[in-house]
Amino acid sequence: MQNIKITVSYDGTNYYGWQKQKGKKTIQGTLEKALRRILKRTVKLTGSGRTDAGVHAFFQCANFKTDKLLVPVKKLPYVLNRLLPEDIRVLNAEEVDEGFDARRSAKAKTYMYVISNLSVQSPFSARYSWHIPEPLDVTKMRKAARTLIGKHDFRAFMSSGSVVSSTVREVKKIVIKKKNSQIMIIIRADGFLKQMVRNIVGTLVEAGKGKRTPQEVAKILSSRDRTKAGICAPAHGLFLLSVDY
Amino acid sequence: MQNIKITVSYDGTNYYGWQKQKGKKTIQGTLEKALRRILKRTVKLTGSGRTDAGVHAFFQCANFKTDKLLVPVKKLPYVLNRLLPEDIRVLNAEEVDEGFDARRSAKAKTYMYVISNLSVQSPFSARYSWHIPEPLDVTKMRKAARTLIGKHDFRAFMSSGSVVSSTVREVKKIVIKKKNSQIMIIIRADGFLKQMVRNIVGTLVEAGKGKRTPQEVAKILSSRDRTKAGICAPAHGLFLLSVDY
Repeated sequence: MQNIKITVSYDGTNYYGWQKQKGKKTIQGTLEKALRRILKRTVKLTGSGRTDAGVHAFFQCANFKTDKLLVPVKKLPYVLNRLLPEDIRVLNAEEVDEGFDARRSAKAKTYMYVISNLSVQSPFSARYSWHIPEPLDVTKMRKAARTLIGKHDFRAFMSSGSVVSSTVREVKKIVIKKKNSQIMIIIRADGFLKQMVRNIVGTLVEAGKGKRTPQEVAKILSSRDRTKAGICAPAHGLFLLSVDY
Repeated sequence: MQNIKITVSYDGTNYYGWQKQKGKKTIQGTLEKALRRILKRTVKLTGSGRTDAGVHAFFQCANFKTDKLLVPVKKLPYVLNRLLPEDIRVLNAEEVDEGFDARRSAKAKTYMYVISNLSVQSPFSARYSWHIPEPLDVTKMRKAARTLIGKHDFRAFMSSGSVVSSTVREVKKIVIKKKNSQIMIIIRADGFLKQMVRNIVGTLVEAGKGKRTPQEVAKILSSRDRTKAGICAPAHGLFLLSVDY
């Protein structure tokens, strides 16, 4: 058996997220279908994690096992991209150790959330950012973000509907950059709970609007109560940047 | 009568270009429909020029005349944007002199053409750039571009199907920037013939691939023969940047 790791970039706008679902267009489903055409057999693709409907990825990682690759591994991106729609691109393919598992082997993931802080949204950013016309104080957002760094129980920032053994995660960094009217929030952690980035961003935006102080954001974290946190930021501003192994 | 100038940004992907056409979704048609809903009367919008199907615009300008605006002119972008799809945004509206005509009063226009010079196209650039995986020599492209600067008969770079009294235009500048794997060609002229930017870009790309020398590009220009020039670059890499009045 060969174990193949692929790196994939996708515009999630037209997909019901990563995970395969019956009768719905998903990233995993679309990739598995293209792989089946090339390999002449069904393979199961394991992603580093699910991305929600509408969420994008720059460097998502996944792996699959097959007894016969039929094409040289270096050619795989090229032949896959010829079959895939242009909003999904395979950037790289390589053979990895048998033990590698894109989900379990992941040591950390980095997400980026993009906010368009303009009075009128640009048509070119509409698919790729959350439009917030009101002024946002980036300094306040940074102060609030600092209270979330470290190993904590992030239950207050987890959306319902997922079963996890532990809600403790280590947020290794949160960087907030401002470039012209664009605000980028980059979050790196050893793992993320369901919609954790979007729930954190929704809360940081409230801090940026002056509706929550950094102290209040720290209290939300320690409350471990989802109803205390801000709204869940929309999916289309979120990008999975990279996965560390 | 009030004469109103509007500045519009649009993602042209889902439109049959600027100009109104029966039974087809166009930028002009979509804007006129929204204006009719607000003004309770039909107005005719005059654009600075037509953009082809699939071409985008950052700052397209247009004007219309009406006997009654019904909303304060400063509020017009806001009320229009509430009716418009998110791939068309009105950025500004202002009252101008009676004699102003978005097409005839235009002194110069600037276009930008974007090339993705990567082995694998990014899903986020697919709608907004021409993907050319082969190496392009930007220095050669710049040398070829220099031969086109100035007042010339650009007939060799005009696509068929348009009737114009003169094919002489003045190209005021061509700037070619390279940023990572993205090549941007910015062209400013007092006016453009049909698909002139795209025909120039197609030719410059051939120069960048080493298929045409700068001298050959100069010869194409002086031949005034369309069959001599390079291919017409695809619409989705082209952006109308701005119009000078």
